[in-house]
Amino acid sequence: MRLLIPRSDIEVTAVTSRKYKDVKVSKVYPHLEKITNHVFADALPEKIASLCDIVFLAVPHGEAMRAVPVFLDAGKKVIDLSADYRLKNVDIYEKWYVKHTSPNLISEAVYGLPELYRENIRNARLVANPGCYPTSIILGLAPLLTRGLVEPASIIADSKSGVSGAGRELQMSSLFCEVNEGFKAYKAGSHRHTPEIEQEVGILAGKDVSVLFTPHLIPIDRGILSTIYGTLQKRLTTAEIVNYYHEFYESEPFIRVCEEGVLPNVASVRGSNMCDIGIKVDERTGRVIVISAIDNLIKGAAGQAIQNMNLICGIPENSGLHLMPLFP
Amino acid sequence: MRLLIPRSDIEVTAVTSRKYKDVKVSKVYPHLEKITNHVFADALPEKIASLCDIVFLAVPHGEAMRAVPVFLDAGKKVIDLSADYRLKNVDIYEKWYVKHTSPNLISEAVYGLPELYRENIRNARLVANPGCYPTSIILGLAPLLTRGLVEPASIIADSKSGVSGAGRELQMSSLFCEVNEGFKAYKAGSHRHTPEIEQEVGILAGKDVSVLFTPHLIPIDRGILSTIYGTLQKRLTTAEIVNYYHEFYESEPFIRVCEEGVLPNVASVRGSNMCDIGIKVDERTGRVIVISAIDNLIKGAAGQAIQNMNLICGIPENSGLHLMPLFP
Amino acid sequence: MRLLIPRSDIEVTAVTSRKYKDVKVSKVYPHLEKITNHVFADALPEKIASLCDIVFLAVPHGEAMRAVPVFLDAGKKVIDLSADYRLKNVDIYEKWYVKHTSPNLISEAVYGLPELYRENIRNARLVANPGCYPTSIILGLAPLLTRGLVEPASIIADSKSGVSGAGRELQMSSLFCEVNEGFKAYKAGSHRHTPEIEQEVGILAGKDVSVLFTPHLIPIDRGILSTIYGTLQKRLTTAEIVNYYHEFYESEPFIRVCEEGVLPNVASVRGSNMCDIGIKVDERTGRVIVISAIDNLIKGAAGQAIQNMNLICGIPENSGLHLMPLFP
Amino acid sequence: MRLLIPRSDIEVTAVTSRKYKDVKVSKVYPHLEKITNHVFADALPEKIASLCDIVFLAVPHGEAMRAVPVFLDAGKKVIDLSADYRLKNVDIYEKWYVKHTSPNLISEAVYGLPELYRENIRNARLVANPGCYPTSIILGLAPLLTRGLVEPASIIADSKSGVSGAGRELQMSSLFCEVNEGFKAYKAGSHRHTPEIEQEVGILAGKDVSVLFTPHLIPIDRGILSTIYGTLQKRLTTAEIVNYYHEFYESEPFIRVCEEGVLPNVASVRGSNMCDIGIKVDERTGRVIVISAIDNLIKGAAGQAIQNMNLICGIPENSGLHLMPLFP
Repeated sequence: MRLLIPRSDIEVTAVTSRKYKDVKVSKVYPHLEKITNHVFADALPEKIASLCDIVFLAVPHGEAMRAVPVFLDAGKKVIDLSADYRLKNVDIYEKWYVKHTSPNLISEAVYGLPELYRENIRNARLVANPGCYPTSIILGLAPLLTRGLVEPASIIADSKSGVSGAGRELQMSSLFCEVNEGFKAYKAGSHRHTPEIEQEVGILAGKDVSVLFTPHLIPIDRGILSTIYGTLQKRLTTAEIVNYYHEFYESEPFIRVCEEGVLPNVASVRGSNMCDIGIKVDERTGRVIVISAIDNLIKGAAGQAIQNMNLICGIPENSGLHLMPLFP
Repeated sequence: MRLLIPRSDIEVTAVTSRKYKDVKVSKVYPHLEKITNHVFADALPEKIASLCDIVFLAVPHGEAMRAVPVFLDAGKKVIDLSADYRLKNVDIYEKWYVKHTSPNLISEAVYGLPELYRENIRNARLVANPGCYPTSIILGLAPLLTRGLVEPASIIADSKSGVSGAGRELQMSSLFCEVNEGFKAYKAGSHRHTPEIEQEVGILAGKDVSVLFTPHLIPIDRGILSTIYGTLQKRLTTAEIVNYYHEFYESEPFIRVCEEGVLPNVASVRGSNMCDIGIKVDERTGRVIVISAIDNLIKGAAGQAIQNMNLICGIPENSGLHLMPLFP
Repeated sequence: MRLLIPRSDIEVTAVTSRKYKDVKVSKVYPHLEKITNHVFADALPEKIASLCDIVFLAVPHGEAMRAVPVFLDAGKKVIDLSADYRLKNVDIYEKWYVKHTSPNLISEAVYGLPELYRENIRNARLVANPGCYPTSIILGLAPLLTRGLVEPASIIADSKSGVSGAGRELQMSSLFCEVNEGFKAYKAGSHRHTPEIEQEVGILAGKDVSVLFTPHLIPIDRGILSTIYGTLQKRLTTAEIVNYYHEFYESEPFIRVCEEGVLPNVASVRGSNMCDIGIKVDERTGRVIVISAIDNLIKGAAGQAIQNMNLICGIPENSGLHLMPLFP
Repeated sequence: MRLLIPRSDIEVTAVTSRKYKDVKVSKVYPHLEKITNHVFADALPEKIASLCDIVFLAVPHGEAMRAVPVFLDAGKKVIDLSADYRLKNVDIYEKWYVKHTSPNLISEAVYGLPELYRENIRNARLVANPGCYPTSIILGLAPLLTRGLVEPASIIADSKSGVSGAGRELQMSSLFCEVNEGFKAYKAGSHRHTPEIEQEVGILAGKDVSVLFTPHLIPIDRGILSTIYGTLQKRLTTAEIVNYYHEFYESEPFIRVCEEGVLPNVASVRGSNMCDIGIKVDERTGRVIVISAIDNLIKGAAGQAIQNMNLICGIPENSGLHLMPLFP
């Protein structure tokens, strides 16, 4: 909402919440006081469909798959922020998540990473907005994998996320005193974003691949930093790879490739739709380290969703996304 | 720069720094990479004056008073973020700061708090942009003082600021491990913003007044919360005072008066030009508690400076300041 | 438990929890792994009474008043960390809290602030361990009030607490992203510690008094800093008051009076039973500012409870409390 | 000093500082007020040698190598917290650090990791106290390497450290606003702890090995978490490896091996000499993930130094180190 309200080309017609229905949005989010007068409507897809052209679905997996068909049947376009349509292989989806109730729509859904699927997104009815961790990892690896410069089976993604990644749910592990001044890994080797990463890495690599993915929790509000390791297929210098990344992402508005010697910091992308990428070749071990940083709530979620909306609507892709990173 | 760059009606023609002259801005502030190609120019007022119509001066007190005459003589308008032209009484200035070298300009300077001095600012050549603490305290007290509802001599301002208020200078007290997980008062009763607060409180109260001001350091990046205490001149309820604040600030774009029962949080104004104000009458002691929250870097500095520039230029006052608070 | 386990003169015989009964303590608090093998027992006062000589009650108000009589009837001594026996006036208790079910025990209970009630505590069966905010405020004011140096009706206590003060309960307002990078006041003028502060200030002042108390939330784990304002009854210098505080607290093991010019920081008492107190006279307004800092979980709760236990048991008062502040 | 002062078997006879000579320690570290009356003495090895039996050297590399011979010649024992005597191969030392001025003492120095070199430490005159990162990584890998369960060339250590690791020096990158709400890697593949890690991994593996080591900065005061990846030499379950770690570290007082399914958190070791280790086998990729957590200032520095001192003095190894982790 923060990103849509200031726009003159878009109108927010309804905001829904089962929990807060009939409550003013600014009661729940006091920072939006005087900015919006919206009141949360009940989350009834049939009703909402009549009010809008495009729907952003930000409901848990399992629920999205029930709402999406309603909106599509009503002729609406949907950008789904859940995991329900991200995995092309329904068996893999059901292994990691739950039984799928609208598997027929999976093949039609477009994986909403504009840097890789821009043209398909323009024509999509249903966009599966990527997960926050996969966004940071796939953008970090795409140039290397596209050119076959890294051994796919060697890839390890050691990711670190701010606490907003866990949402606003009441759980002990999200309490201030549990998180603050701490740092830990969680779901090492078993996080649900793993198959999503593997799917896209596999497509880029042209073969099936297993990726080792370890998420960690940083005691900050926003930001994901992924440190990605891979064995190089041939000797390459940092400068050569940096150059190649610059080429690969040359016309991308939201990718910033760091110069040799510079590594990204989540603080430099906070509040923006940027993805910063830094490279370091470790010649002693023949490996490359790729480090990518995004704001998990913007490029990792809402900002990317709006980028997708812009593409679907034929509006300039960066409309409403000239968000200056907020530092400090 | 973050706030000016995205604008189409304003052009940033020069950015200066003695320390970083000839260095790319984005080298020093990596979050601005791909956003600006500016290179820091040397801070030579004579040269800079020829490049622009309006100057934002963000140099220490003592230096501003030397640069301002150069810019004014060259026919430029100046918004000075230092303390050099805030105090109308040069003796008080010299008691709290240093010898003044251009005291003749003091009477002409307009105190840049648009909510109180809007019309004067429109016609000013020289605007003295208020201090961050005074902004939060004066906006918090103005309605009460204007109507004579509070005993001026009873006022105590207990303020708390994020660490960015100290700037980016290398000092032990700004190191992460010195500040983090700590909380302390500093310069209790002796902070240089005291005479600035007293000047404006005195003008509003119509008489000289001493204010007790205690600043504290919060281990956060941005934000000032001022908790202001005063003895009421007559019995009033919280609701009555809240209503009066709503009236007083009715047409102000950047003031949000909280409903009864709600108190402000610096997190709700982060990254925005908003000033949130909450009220609570303590009927047991006959005192009123006014709590105001601003982002010290926006409404407390750069945002207010741009608000003043908009007024000077005859542009709509909120141009470029539709900054959505960033939460979380 | 952290503070009792390493001691050789004390044995922890039972630890209770209804929620976690039969669960290993170190499952719930992983930092205690390898340090204790205790398993949470159910919280059944009758059963527990037979296992121990002294009971620390850390249950909500309302529950303590039901358990205390059981322990006392069994001949045990009780240190109650709830508010149930802190207020001598049952009407005031019932106005701010709930109906009291064992009011007959109130007069017998000793307010467990050793610096003021040391001798009574030695002989007590029931100690009402003080609230965290009142501890910081009463220790800050006691010397001034004892000597009548400050006008009691002028007292304002502006306190700031770390998040652990809210306990480990699941509530939205304790979530990391709600608290982090924020700062706010809460329950201004209406916090339940107000009558407790007033009771003790009144005793020291020798007359009934209303105190204005405003708590705030700091985004840190531990620590309370209280900034206390009062009007002086006569002209006094900071040095004079500092000297007097040194005298007053001369033999106290856990009070550190700061030298003139130094103000306390919660970071300097973290993890310890210390209370640091700094003084500043504002001669311009005739007021004194007293700033006190404690660790809310130690001197504000468990440490003070153990100090009381030591007194009750006739053990040296600082046994097990030589806790070095942890900085950084 | 915090850890030595409370002990009755040890006396701190001198504390030195060139910068703060003749200043009270508690002026520089206010948390030690009332705890020590020591005044910083000038750092003159000849003078200091006459005052003590054992010296802890906490000076930069390059300086230690000049002071150590003085103390040894005077018949004192030295625990050196710098890197000067950690690397057995002087060429490697000089490649990563500076020219060595007392290389003859290197072979005599014992690497002060008690879990691996306990007996040698007991008889040492000179102990090279390990680096903080190497401590966490070597303790995490020792059981696997000792048994040859992991391919040494496959090891990647992705480490994350709190800010106190950078010391108290004035540098821009340690300022609160530069670090807070940020997260970044630094010196990827080029940190000076790399050869130290490789030396010890090589000894355990029985062959030379290159290790890829990437440190990151966490916006917290204390703590290192190392996430270590390695390819298993044969199929093993998490349970099997956890069991083996339990065996390997069975009698170690400061190692806590997490049960299967539990991963360590730096918050659980804060303020203590503990090293927590968690294990997870990723059967899909044939790799093991070992995660270790220490307090970089205790087990990563001062605590380990005292553990070494206890061994040298023939005192029980855990004397003065029963430090309860401080949580929250």
